[in-house]
Amino acid sequence: MNSKTAAILSIGNEILKGRTVNTNASEIARKLSFSGYTVKKIIVVQDEPSEIAWGFQTLIGKHDLVISTGGLGPTFDDMTVESFATAFGYKLVEDPASLQILKERYEKAGVELTPERKKMIMIPEGATALKNPFGAAIGVMLEREGSRIIILPGVPKECMGIIDHVLPSIKVAGISTVERSMTISGVMESSIAPIVNKVMKMMEKQVYVKTHPLRSETRNPMLEIEVTAMSQNDATAKESAERAFKLIFDGISEAGLHFQFEEA
Amino acid sequence: MNSKTAAILSIGNEILKGRTVNTNASEIARKLSFSGYTVKKIIVVQDEPSEIAWGFQTLIGKHDLVISTGGLGPTFDDMTVESFATAFGYKLVEDPASLQILKERYEKAGVELTPERKKMIMIPEGATALKNPFGAAIGVMLEREGSRIIILPGVPKECMGIIDHVLPSIKVAGISTVERSMTISGVMESSIAPIVNKVMKMMEKQVYVKTHPLRSETRNPMLEIEVTAMSQNDATAKESAERAFKLIFDGISEAGLHFQFEEA
Repeated sequence: MNSKTAAILSIGNEILKGRTVNTNASEIARKLSFSGYTVKKIIVVQDEPSEIAWGFQTLIGKHDLVISTGGLGPTFDDMTVESFATAFGYKLVEDPASLQILKERYEKAGVELTPERKKMIMIPEGATALKNPFGAAIGVMLEREGSRIIILPGVPKECMGIIDHVLPSIKVAGISTVERSMTISGVMESSIAPIVNKVMKMMEKQVYVKTHPLRSETRNPMLEIEVTAMSQNDATAKESAERAFKLIFDGISEAGLHFQFEEA
Repeated sequence: MNSKTAAILSIGNEILKGRTVNTNASEIARKLSFSGYTVKKIIVVQDEPSEIAWGFQTLIGKHDLVISTGGLGPTFDDMTVESFATAFGYKLVEDPASLQILKERYEKAGVELTPERKKMIMIPEGATALKNPFGAAIGVMLEREGSRIIILPGVPKECMGIIDHVLPSIKVAGISTVERSMTISGVMESSIAPIVNKVMKMMEKQVYVKTHPLRSETRNPMLEIEVTAMSQNDATAKESAERAFKLIFDGISEAGLHFQFEEA
């Protein structure tokens, strides 16, 4: 059971200005986490060729999967594919099938195929075009330095439309991830910290436990305990998660602490 | 008028697993954008010493301001301050004032001050402790390689409580940023792309224009046009934003295109 590593590169000034919350990265990360990947990094960069190049250079060759979002539209600041191609020395070519679709789209709308519009179907030579079910800008997939690279639009519906289509083909075989969460009150996060630590060591590589304080630590403590288990299949992953919870609750009782279960 | 650059380092597996949307980064980015900073990067890393060190090393010395969030609590995976100190060779010391507050907190709750709890008031030698109005873990501020570094907790209320307190002292003097947005229908993003491009060039360094498609490009186009203007004061920034909109709408009319204003 070996999970693969992934990284997400989000391209867009609107995220860096705090105008857009990066929900694309969260949704992709969640989908990847349940498809056998450990997401190691999310990086957000500006709509600038040098920044985009830096982002790709920082991630490619170090992760099995690198997914970028944003910068595929028709405007001047949509420059992901060009910046990628320039940084790594690819020639940009038209994707013939996508060009045909684009032509029909704009013909129907009664406008000409300007360079700004044609930009949306240009891909690095040798790459695979990923059809966009909800928009004009296509996605791009290619391999380089041991990384699978997937370049996606930033419009959430388009981004998710393409990723959902691609996901079955990039899923890591033989890994199941389950996530379970329980909420308790009456014990402080700092009181159960050593117990969680011990359980994590006992079940190393099987589970990951994280606690989230939901109320004031000292006055009125309430905690969410989140267990993520990875295994060969769903059944053994679920067993690991349940065992981790049992060990934690036993540990709390053994330490003489009292707690109540709460509705999540 | 020189804006300063900033970068945000978010530390936490919950973000990389897509379990938590990174609203802290968005809110901090927004506050910084209106305080004279250009946020150049947001980086999310795992709760791992080597990953945290990489994050700080990648950003410190390259930006005027580096703000980290997360990893300041009492649990085993809260390791931001230790990882920072190890990576850059700082000794960790207790902050006496914060230790006093922490002692009283836990005495009142009737529990002892364990190492897990005391961890929350340890700071790199020479750094300034930032009081947390809503929690036990304090923030940290220090200078290094020309960067002001601010280390904050990940719990949103605590993170924002500290940043709001610190913000007036780090605001860049002599810069006002205003943001204006208008929504139009009837023209495609790809049709106004060359017009926006031209206006951006005419008003370089005064405004930044971004368009956001809200509906299908070819069938039923609707666009939000967002103008961000930076100037010495609010009045001149507003003037720049208004001038940019006028130039864009004049450009659309001159190109023979028709559009309607829409309610945002």
